Amino acid sequence: MNNHPVSIDRPWEAESQTAFLQKSGHGYRVGIPEKKNFFKEFSFAFRETFFHDDPLYHYKDQPRRKQFWLGLQSFFPILGWGRHYNLKKFKGDLLAGLTIASLCIPQDIGYAKLANVPPNNGLYTSFVPPLVYAAMGSSRDIAIGPVAVVSLLLGELLKHEINPKKHPEEYLHLAFTATFFAGITQVALGFLRLGFLVEFLSHAAVVGFMAGAAITIGLQQLKGLLGIKNFTTNTDIVSVMHSVFSNAHHGWNWQTVVIGMSFLVFLLTAKYIAYRNHKFFWLVAVAPLTSVIVGTFCVYITRVDKDGVNIVRHLDKGINSSSVYKIYWSGPYLVKGAKIGILTGIIGLTEAIAIGRTFATLKGYQIDGNKEMMALGVTNIMGSMTSCIVATGSFSRSAVNFMAGCKTAMSNIVMSLVVLLTLLLITPLFKYTPNAVIAAIIINAVVGLIDIKAAARIWKVDKLDFLALLGAFFGVIFKSVEVGLLIAVMLSIGKILFQVTRPKTALFGNLPRTNIYRNVEQYPEAVRVPGVLIIRVDSAIYFSNSNYLKERILRWLRDEEDLNKEHGLPRNQHLVLEMSAVTDIDTSGILELEELLKALKKLYVQLELANPGPLIMDKFLAANYVELIGPEHIFLSVDDAVAYCTSKFKATENT
Amino acid sequence: MNNHPVSIDRPWEAESQTAFLQKSGHGYRVGIPEKKNFFKEFSFAFRETFFHDDPLYHYKDQPRRKQFWLGLQSFFPILGWGRHYNLKKFKGDLLAGLTIASLCIPQDIGYAKLANVPPNNGLYTSFVPPLVYAAMGSSRDIAIGPVAVVSLLLGELLKHEINPKKHPEEYLHLAFTATFFAGITQVALGFLRLGFLVEFLSHAAVVGFMAGAAITIGLQQLKGLLGIKNFTTNTDIVSVMHSVFSNAHHGWNWQTVVIGMSFLVFLLTAKYIAYRNHKFFWLVAVAPLTSVIVGTFCVYITRVDKDGVNIVRHLDKGINSSSVYKIYWSGPYLVKGAKIGILTGIIGLTEAIAIGRTFATLKGYQIDGNKEMMALGVTNIMGSMTSCIVATGSFSRSAVNFMAGCKTAMSNIVMSLVVLLTLLLITPLFKYTPNAVIAAIIINAVVGLIDIKAAARIWKVDKLDFLALLGAFFGVIFKSVEVGLLIAVMLSIGKILFQVTRPKTALFGNLPRTNIYRNVEQYPEAVRVPGVLIIRVDSAIYFSNSNYLKERILRWLRDEEDLNKEHGLPRNQHLVLEMSAVTDIDTSGILELEELLKALKKLYVQLELANPGPLIMDKFLAANYVELIGPEHIFLSVDDAVAYCTSKFKATENT
Repeated sequence: MNNHPVSIDRPWEAESQTAFLQKSGHGYRVGIPEKKNFFKEFSFAFRETFFHDDPLYHYKDQPRRKQFWLGLQSFFPILGWGRHYNLKKFKGDLLAGLTIASLCIPQDIGYAKLANVPPNNGLYTSFVPPLVYAAMGSSRDIAIGPVAVVSLLLGELLKHEINPKKHPEEYLHLAFTATFFAGITQVALGFLRLGFLVEFLSHAAVVGFMAGAAITIGLQQLKGLLGIKNFTTNTDIVSVMHSVFSNAHHGWNWQTVVIGMSFLVFLLTAKYIAYRNHKFFWLVAVAPLTSVIVGTFCVYITRVDKDGVNIVRHLDKGINSSSVYKIYWSGPYLVKGAKIGILTGIIGLTEAIAIGRTFATLKGYQIDGNKEMMALGVTNIMGSMTSCIVATGSFSRSAVNFMAGCKTAMSNIVMSLVVLLTLLLITPLFKYTPNAVIAAIIINAVVGLIDIKAAARIWKVDKLDFLALLGAFFGVIFKSVEVGLLIAVMLSIGKILFQVTRPKTALFGNLPRTNIYRNVEQYPEAVRVPGVLIIRVDSAIYFSNSNYLKERILRWLRDEEDLNKEHGLPRNQHLVLEMSAVTDIDTSGILELEELLKALKKLYVQLELANPGPLIMDKFLAANYVELIGPEHIFLSVDDAVAYCTSKFKATENT
Repeated sequence: MNNHPVSIDRPWEAESQTAFLQKSGHGYRVGIPEKKNFFKEFSFAFRETFFHDDPLYHYKDQPRRKQFWLGLQSFFPILGWGRHYNLKKFKGDLLAGLTIASLCIPQDIGYAKLANVPPNNGLYTSFVPPLVYAAMGSSRDIAIGPVAVVSLLLGELLKHEINPKKHPEEYLHLAFTATFFAGITQVALGFLRLGFLVEFLSHAAVVGFMAGAAITIGLQQLKGLLGIKNFTTNTDIVSVMHSVFSNAHHGWNWQTVVIGMSFLVFLLTAKYIAYRNHKFFWLVAVAPLTSVIVGTFCVYITRVDKDGVNIVRHLDKGINSSSVYKIYWSGPYLVKGAKIGILTGIIGLTEAIAIGRTFATLKGYQIDGNKEMMALGVTNIMGSMTSCIVATGSFSRSAVNFMAGCKTAMSNIVMSLVVLLTLLLITPLFKYTPNAVIAAIIINAVVGLIDIKAAARIWKVDKLDFLALLGAFFGVIFKSVEVGLLIAVMLSIGKILFQVTRPKTALFGNLPRTNIYRNVEQYPEAVRVPGVLIIRVDSAIYFSNSNYLKERILRWLRDEEDLNKEHGLPRNQHLVLEMSAVTDIDTSGILELEELLKALKKLYVQLELANPGPLIMDKFLAANYVELIGPEHIFLSVDDAVAYCTSKFKATENT
């Protein structure tokens, strides 16, 4: 905290100050950028913040008709790629669409369970949302539908408000309300160009969060896999394991265990084969549907459901009904639904954008984050009105989509049509599907969310990042998804703040026979200049670090003086601050630099500044710091500053 | 968000990678710092975060006996300065002590009112805490006691829990509990060396917050100044003004108004004279006590209190009684008191440290933030056990203390003894002091908290800082002190996050006849190198900005290409990233640099890196980025990189 009641007040003499700035050996002065007025400065910052991607670039110098067409196309990319669509592309999309459809049907049923809604609503979510997204989205590879993590989060949050067993109708209405607001949130973030808020979740935190969520979801499946009836409603690992083991003696159903385990082994084996040999990737897609068919058939024949094997049971024929009037448009549930929607909407976005970007990079095309958000938002708004829960891009299905050779968002349309046919014709058959098979399929799907390679890489590159990963991971598995998410966000932001609070400083030395100065720790060849201490500050100087930096610089000086005394070297008479990396300074920073100047004066050390940037010079002038330090002590480069110092030494020697 | 399920996996070959790093013209390679092990790295970061001031420096190479003595002295600085204390110093301290005593007595009564406690407790707080601080504190100029902002905050927060009119006893107990925990908080922050947390309130936010609090406090005094009986309990400006004007017809007491206004004019005149001529600074100190004496005498003679002029009334003789058993050691009020204590403790710290630092800089001595916190914490713990409310350093009294020529903390002891005599002998006389006079004194005192000069300077230097100031200011006056504080913290942190999210990038050019490259906006003399685009990134590359930076760099390239086409210049075949200011990079940052590399390859542009720092090289090696980009594309300086590019051009021309 830097509060100075006594403020320094000098006349505003920018012109006279700059005239005295030192010229370098080659005749250059430290540059003063043109004075921008406040409005210009503000509009520049505003543009960089919200419109850094220059969205109107493509409209420049185009006739009005073309501009309209481009505008329409930017909202409905299908108008763009649809015109060049051909049979060859359709072949790829058809195959990919059929593959992801076979994958999504059993997953949908399982994810609906995670969200505590009837399995029908899971399937509905794979019908309408993919169609809307196909028209509006710009990713060619993403597969839209319900996903594990978002469904789990949705289910957990909704459960706190309404008991899904006691009031299933109200619960479902709240789910649609949340879905509606998830969509609104996504559209709003995109429209207000606040997409960058999503970036406040660091890569490491997301890896940890996803792994934790995968394990939590996997643990939830133990209920279905082991046929436990009295399962805990908590999701943390302690409650779940307690629930599992306290039921071990009489709560498990052996027929269920046999079915579940054998299909799980089958699915994991298929995955392993596909992983070892990419030619067999279709196994990943086909195995789940095969499991469902075989499992259902077995139960239908043997009727083990009468022996306690749980089956899906409730699954109706028919497509999505309108749910416009089921959304809470008023009352206390409106607010609650909105809150849940905002959270699930943001998590959904995070996942969709990550997937979209990854595959766009692999194929070498660009996706526009803000537009993607709007597309996904409209998708969810339409979904909420047609009995769907929150939809987003699925990691596992998008990867399969990509590997199966999808070309455009048409594969989503194909998938959607297959789901439509399923809903119209064969859903009743799924009634006999054992829950254990669904559980096995979900466990198999979420295993892919645990990215051990990424975690290892993070450990190798950045230990602090790894800490954020662990925090999010343990938060999810030991407490709950929300807590893990909160920890992930807090650690991500905390890390930034920490780095800004304790920036690095380094001692600089000269590389012999050059005019280059570098960090002596990085370049052992660099030698110090006698009598001149060169310190580089590696960060913008803000209120949060200005006092630390001042004290750290004084400590450098003290420690170096101790060394000089020890070795009988001359004391440092000049302290050169290398300011290349000081990209900005605020009022607190300038106040601390003033104090540094005073403190150094007491020690008979002269402060010299090398290479201050445009923003710094601007603020130094505004705050009269240039006059305070003396313009002759501001240099274009460290080399110039050192030349000045040594010339002073010589002058003293001669007198 | 940067989540990449497909991660790049290559063998770990740091050695072989570095062997291919380019040598500069002078024979230097980009330096690779020594590999630190994890523990060493962690302990270094830990030391810099919590022990950056190297607190054990003075103990090094000292005999054990001396070390013990130094240790004791560091907790009780009085043992240090006390040994060299002499009569000359005492003269200064005596005068200063008497001056601040005359100032503190009426202020204490007023601040007790702000905290809704009896005036006695205000006076008590100027007796015990200054004594404790004098023994333990390291500031020589600070004047300890109750202060306006903290008392107001304390009163507001306590009022939410217990009604001070209905349950005055319980309210007082909760106040002591809060004071106790304020002390505990301060000791804990100091002991855990978390003092830097206080720095997360930016200078600008504090200026705004203080000004807002001063106006709020001033508005509260309208009750006493105008003699309004039915005054609002809210503190926002709208409620207060409504209360004032709705009472205008029959709620004001004309005698009170006359007394209040005349003394206010007297006080402000005295202040103005002292401000114009520093020789008369004693007027500032003497005027309040004079007002109290004259005001009290007038009321005592005329007995206008019977005509509705409010007087202090309840003020008992005698010194602080023990309040150890009045603190809530259990029950729900323990937790509530602790919460209030934490908040007021932190605000108290902020004020004390700001004052301590300011005057230490003026006189040229150092104060240790963490030790100050412990001293202040013990002060408040002792205070809470002797019927005191939260004490800290007062802006107005410390300034007077300084100007009156205090030499050591002895002036606090003198003040404390004067308050003791007052409590023992003359408190009953204050019973007749009109509240209007106290109100005038407080208004006069808080006017100094509005630092218009500082605000003007902030506006000149940094517009974003000014926005934080306004936010805190309006938050306090239109809502409440807590809300203003919350806004201040959020804006301070938000500003850091914003700067980290949208860092600056700049185009670089060569200063003719030198090997120096600088920002072309700052140095109009700098010329671009044909075919080579040089871009400097002005920030560490983290998850929060990595995607933006990638896109911004690609946009620079696109815009420059457009210009090149327009002017018929050759296209850019190389993109040099000047990395001097890139002080750190995390996993997300490296992932985005990988993507940048891919995107540039598609455009047939070669990426070159100039002057990566030690941390960057370390992480590049760990993540195998050096191998990916090719070690021959990493250079010591921009000059080397440009030399490489132009040599490539020549090679192409010759073939």
